[in-house]
Amino acid sequence: MGRDGLFVSFEGIDGSGKSTQARLLTEALRATGREVVLTREPGGSPGAEEIRRLLLTGGPDRWSPETEILLFTAARRDHLERTIRPALARGAVVITDRFADSTRVYQGAARADLRATVDRLHALMIGQDPDLTLVIDMDPRRALARGLARRSGEDRFEDMGLAFQERLRTGYAALAAEDPDRIRILDGDRPPEAIAREATALVLARLSD
Amino acid sequence: MGRDGLFVSFEGIDGSGKSTQARLLTEALRATGREVVLTREPGGSPGAEEIRRLLLTGGPDRWSPETEILLFTAARRDHLERTIRPALARGAVVITDRFADSTRVYQGAARADLRATVDRLHALMIGQDPDLTLVIDMDPRRALARGLARRSGEDRFEDMGLAFQERLRTGYAALAAEDPDRIRILDGDRPPEAIAREATALVLARLSD
Ligand SMILES: Nc1ncnc2c1ncn2[C@@H]1O[C@H](COP(=O)(O)OP(=O)(O)OP(=O)(O)O)[C@@H](O)[C@H]1O
Ligand SMILES: Nc1ncnc2c1ncn2[C@@H]1O[C@H](COP(=O)(O)OP(=O)(O)OP(=O)(O)O)[C@@H](O)[C@H]1O
Ligand SMILES: [Mg+2]
Ligand SMILES: [Mg+2]
Repeated sequence: MGRDGLFVSFEGIDGSGKSTQARLLTEALRATGREVVLTREPGGSPGAEEIRRLLLTGGPDRWSPETEILLFTAARRDHLERTIRPALARGAVVITDRFADSTRVYQGAARADLRATVDRLHALMIGQDPDLTLVIDMDPRRALARGLARRSGEDRFEDMGLAFQERLRTGYAALAAEDPDRIRILDGDRPPEAIAREATALVLARLSD
Repeated sequence: MGRDGLFVSFEGIDGSGKSTQARLLTEALRATGREVVLTREPGGSPGAEEIRRLLLTGGPDRWSPETEILLFTAARRDHLERTIRPALARGAVVITDRFADSTRVYQGAARADLRATVDRLHALMIGQDPDLTLVIDMDPRRALARGLARRSGEDRFEDMGLAFQERLRTGYAALAAEDPDRIRILDGDRPPEAIAREATALVLARLSD
């Protein structure tokens, strides 16, 4: 594949600070003179952003879980082909706000039997994970309180409430235990700058490997 | 699954007369007092029609073949869940203008190695084929000449030209040979009423099985 860059994802429950940290890490790495591509899921390429619109608007029953997984996978494939792989091939650092782990954890938390479907679809159509995944971990109650200040129209998942966010948190912890080399847990209940310092140090260490 | 109805698809190259025959068969069966649901792909349910818009507009490179297959499969899953299965469960005859065979043949004709991906995705996320598939077979030259009279905006596939349509024709023939119980070939180079008589007789025979 000729990959020289580094592929980093931020993961975590809603309102845990992923977007904030993705931005701070981007700024820190750009300050070292590196090319950084900051992107997000669902979306991150023109086609995937159109699919995102289908996914994040409308009522909770707009799509069945299986159709939803297919749409996420279609968006991810486009994102990977059009944005992520070309950037990695140029040697850039790609920082994405969510990637496949979100599908594993959110769909698995919604209905445990979906996890096998998610994994098979990933193996068949995506076949790539980040080099490093930073999960921002925190109490869902505190994250939801942050979130209340900034409601957008895209809150289908947040509407599912606290018990669901607790399942997500457990899901991320289980995933990190399965793949400790790739997935690192960061304590999200600290000032943004403290989290960003730890994230930046982890990424710089990988870059100098 | 509690299926009592009959699931029929029309297939064939562009301009072969699928939509015409689907309509004529619907009228003939309704005249016998049956409930008939006439539908189409991509589309056939509100969500799938939105995905159809993503698939059929834009330039030929808008989606990679793999992303395209994922979008077709997402639309098909929605169509199956929201339109086809409920109708079959009521005992209706469902007549669809294209179904999974179109993906097998079109994507396989575009790039032979995609056929395995199409088959795996179908097994994983769809898992159902029509009870009876009627392939309208004809010379692509004659079908394209018909088509010239009725250009819509949705002509990405037709733009790929005659050689591609020849590959599609061969693809449908190969598929019918693989599954002769399900797939029947109808000679499309006859007046619409003659084809419709044969199609209606085949469906009535299945209904009285
Ligand atoms: N470490 C932090 N301490 C306190 N507040 C924070 C911290 N990080 C982010 N915030 C604030 O919390 C809110 C959620 O942050 P952010 O949007 O980065 O989270 P997110 O994980 O991207 O959320 P979402 O899942 O909804 O995209 C924002 O208002 C942000 O300013
Ligand atoms: N048996 C026939 N003989 C002559 N003309 C026909 C016949 N069947 C359909 N046509 C005409 O040919 C054109 C294509 O027919 P139709 O739209 O039914 O084909 P189609 O297979 O649905 O095409 P598409 O793949 O573009 O959807 C129409 O103008 C239609 O009126
Ligand atoms: Mg965010
Ligand atoms: Mg038609």
